[in-house]
Amino acid sequence: MATAGKVIKCQAAVAWEQNKPLVMEEIEVAPPQANEIRIKVVATGVCHSDLYHLFEGKQKAGFPCVLGHEGAGIVESVGSGVTNFKPGDKVIPLFVSQCGQCRFCKSPKTNQCEKGWASERFTAMSSSDTRLTSPLNKVCLLGCGVATGYGAAINTAKVEPGSTCAVFGLGAVGLAAVMGCKNAGAKRIIAVDINPAKYEKAKVFGATEFVNPKDHDKPISQVLHEMTDGGVDFSLECVGNVAVMRSALESCVKGWGVSVLVGWTDLDDFSARPIQLISGRTWKGSLFGGFKSKDSVPQLVNDYLQKKVKLDEFITHNMTLAQVNSAIDLMKTGGCIRTILSVSPE
Amino acid sequence: MATAGKVIKCQAAVAWEQNKPLVMEEIEVAPPQANEIRIKVVATGVCHSDLYHLFEGKQKAGFPCVLGHEGAGIVESVGSGVTNFKPGDKVIPLFVSQCGQCRFCKSPKTNQCEKGWASERFTAMSSSDTRLTSPLNKVCLLGCGVATGYGAAINTAKVEPGSTCAVFGLGAVGLAAVMGCKNAGAKRIIAVDINPAKYEKAKVFGATEFVNPKDHDKPISQVLHEMTDGGVDFSLECVGNVAVMRSALESCVKGWGVSVLVGWTDLDDFSARPIQLISGRTWKGSLFGGFKSKDSVPQLVNDYLQKKVKLDEFITHNMTLAQVNSAIDLMKTGGCIRTILSVSPE
Repeated sequence: MATAGKVIKCQAAVAWEQNKPLVMEEIEVAPPQANEIRIKVVATGVCHSDLYHLFEGKQKAGFPCVLGHEGAGIVESVGSGVTNFKPGDKVIPLFVSQCGQCRFCKSPKTNQCEKGWASERFTAMSSSDTRLTSPLNKVCLLGCGVATGYGAAINTAKVEPGSTCAVFGLGAVGLAAVMGCKNAGAKRIIAVDINPAKYEKAKVFGATEFVNPKDHDKPISQVLHEMTDGGVDFSLECVGNVAVMRSALESCVKGWGVSVLVGWTDLDDFSARPIQLISGRTWKGSLFGGFKSKDSVPQLVNDYLQKKVKLDEFITHNMTLAQVNSAIDLMKTGGCIRTILSVSPE
Repeated sequence: MATAGKVIKCQAAVAWEQNKPLVMEEIEVAPPQANEIRIKVVATGVCHSDLYHLFEGKQKAGFPCVLGHEGAGIVESVGSGVTNFKPGDKVIPLFVSQCGQCRFCKSPKTNQCEKGWASERFTAMSSSDTRLTSPLNKVCLLGCGVATGYGAAINTAKVEPGSTCAVFGLGAVGLAAVMGCKNAGAKRIIAVDINPAKYEKAKVFGATEFVNPKDHDKPISQVLHEMTDGGVDFSLECVGNVAVMRSALESCVKGWGVSVLVGWTDLDDFSARPIQLISGRTWKGSLFGGFKSKDSVPQLVNDYLQKKVKLDEFITHNMTLAQVNSAIDLMKTGGCIRTILSVSPE
C-alpha cells in the first residue's frame, strides 16, 4: 500500500486518564517494526475488560492508551521478518501469544505462552494466521469475550455430557459459557443473574433454567443445592466479583464439583473455607478460555461459519467509533450484551 | 467371646472439655447395635486432628469424647446384620465410609460416600474388611495420616513422573505426601518446613531438597519460583494453615500448577488473588487422600507388607495409653512424627 513504511494518521478514541470519557483524536501510528504488523481495524467489540481498565483497575500508569482489544481488521503493512502475513490479509489480533516454541506452548495443558509473560503484560502482537472470509464485525468477538466464556466451559471446566451446570453472570462471557455448556452436552444449564432481562437471551444460547439471587432470602448456593440435590457439577463465574466466585464454588456438589473463575478482577482476594476444597471440589481459572490462540481462533471462525458457534446473537447494538462513549455508558448500565463499533470500512 | 452382648468396662482416655488434659477412666461400652461392631483397640496413632479437636476446633459440643481415630484392633463382637466381620478379625476403623451404593461411591471421581455425610459428621462405623496379618501397631497409621498424605499426592494432585513437587509441612501427613510424590515418579521433591530437624526424616521418604522459610527474607513462593524456573508442578499443603495454603498455591507454576489442601483447619478462610487461578493454576483438596476407604486400606496394607509404602519410619515414639498426655505434649512441641499408643495386648 502507498502508506507502507510511513507514519500514518488515524482517528482514535484516546483514553487519557481513568474515569474520563474517551476523546476522539487524530493520532500518528508509526510503521511496524520487525515482527510487527500494522492493522487497519475494521470493527471492535466493547468488552468489559476495557471498562475495567478505564474505571476499576489500579494501573494508572496504563494511560494514555487506545482501548479496543476485541477487534478485527486488515493488514495494512508488515515489518521485517514477517512472512505469515501480507497486506490485505484479514486478521484478528490476539492478546494471548502463541510462540509455539516455549514449554507452555509445547504443553497440551495450557495456552499461556511464556513469550507473552516476558513482557509483564499480555502481548497483542501475535495474530491469527487465517485468511478470514467472514464478516469482521462479527468474528471480532472471537478475539476476547466469546472465546473466553466458551473455552472456559469446554477447555477448563471440561463440562461433561449429561452434567448440570450453573453460569453466574449473563454478559457476553457468561452467555458464551452457556453456549459452551450446551455444546459440551450439559443436561441442565442454570443461568444466574440479578437482571432477569437477560434470561430470554440466555435461553437462545442453551440455558434451561434461571435463578435471580434477589428472589431468594437464602444464599444462592443453597438455592442451587436444593434445585440439584446437592449442587451442580460445574459452575462458571463470569462476573469478576470475588463474592460471586465464592458462591459459585459453594454451589458445586461435593466430591467432584468444578468451579471456574472466568470473570476478570484483580482488586480483591477470593476466599472460601478449606472444607469446600477438602470435600472434593476443584477451583480453576483460565485466560482466553484456555484456547491456544493462533491455533484455535481460526478453528472458532470455522465453527461460526458452520453454525456450531453463535456470534450474531451476542450483538445487541452497532455503533460507530465516534459513538464509543455511548457504547461504554450502555455497557455500564447493563443495557447491552455486545456493542460492535465500526471503525473503518472493510 | 464371653463378653458378647454385654456392657463391658474399658480403660479410656476421656476428653472432658477443650484445652484440658485427658483423664484415664474406666468407662462402660454398650454392645454393638445393628450393623455395628465392637472393637478391642490394640494401638492408635496420635494424630494432629485429635489435637485440633482438643485445642483448636470450635465444636465445643463434641465433648466429652474418647479421641483416637487412627487405630487398629480386633473385633470383640458384632451386632445384628453384620456378615463381613466376626469376632477375632483384625480391623482398621475408617472415618470415611464407603457404602458402595450411593452416587459418590459409584463415581470413580471421589471417595466421599454420601452415607457418611448423612450424619452431618464423618462416620467411624464402617471398617476395612481385610483380615490383617500385619502388626496393628504399624498399620493403624493407614487409618488416617499416612493414607491422607500419600493419597493426596497420588490420587488428588495426580503427581506425574518427572515432575517437580513441593510439600509444605513435614509432619506425618507431609512425609506421607513426600512418599507419594516419590512413588509417583517425581524428579524433584522440595520439602518445606520451619523445623530443620525434620529434613533428615524427609530424605528417608524421598525429599531431594529442603527449604526453611525462615532462612529467607522473601516470600517462600518466590524462593521456590527461583529454584524451579517459574514454580513447581505440584504443591501440597500439609500444615492446616490458610497462609501456608496461599503460599503453596503461589509456589506453583502458571499454566498447569496444581496445589492441594491436605492439612485440616476450619477456623479461617483461605484466599488468593484471582489471577493465581486465571493464569492456569488449579486448587484442590481431598479427604483421606481421595482413597475409597474400604477398597483401598487393605491394598495399602499389602503395599506396606511389600515395602512399597513405608510405615515404620513414621513412628518416632511408642508409649502406653496411660502416657497419652505426654504424647500430646510431644506433638504440640513438634518433638515427634508419630507416637503409637499401645492400648491393649494383641
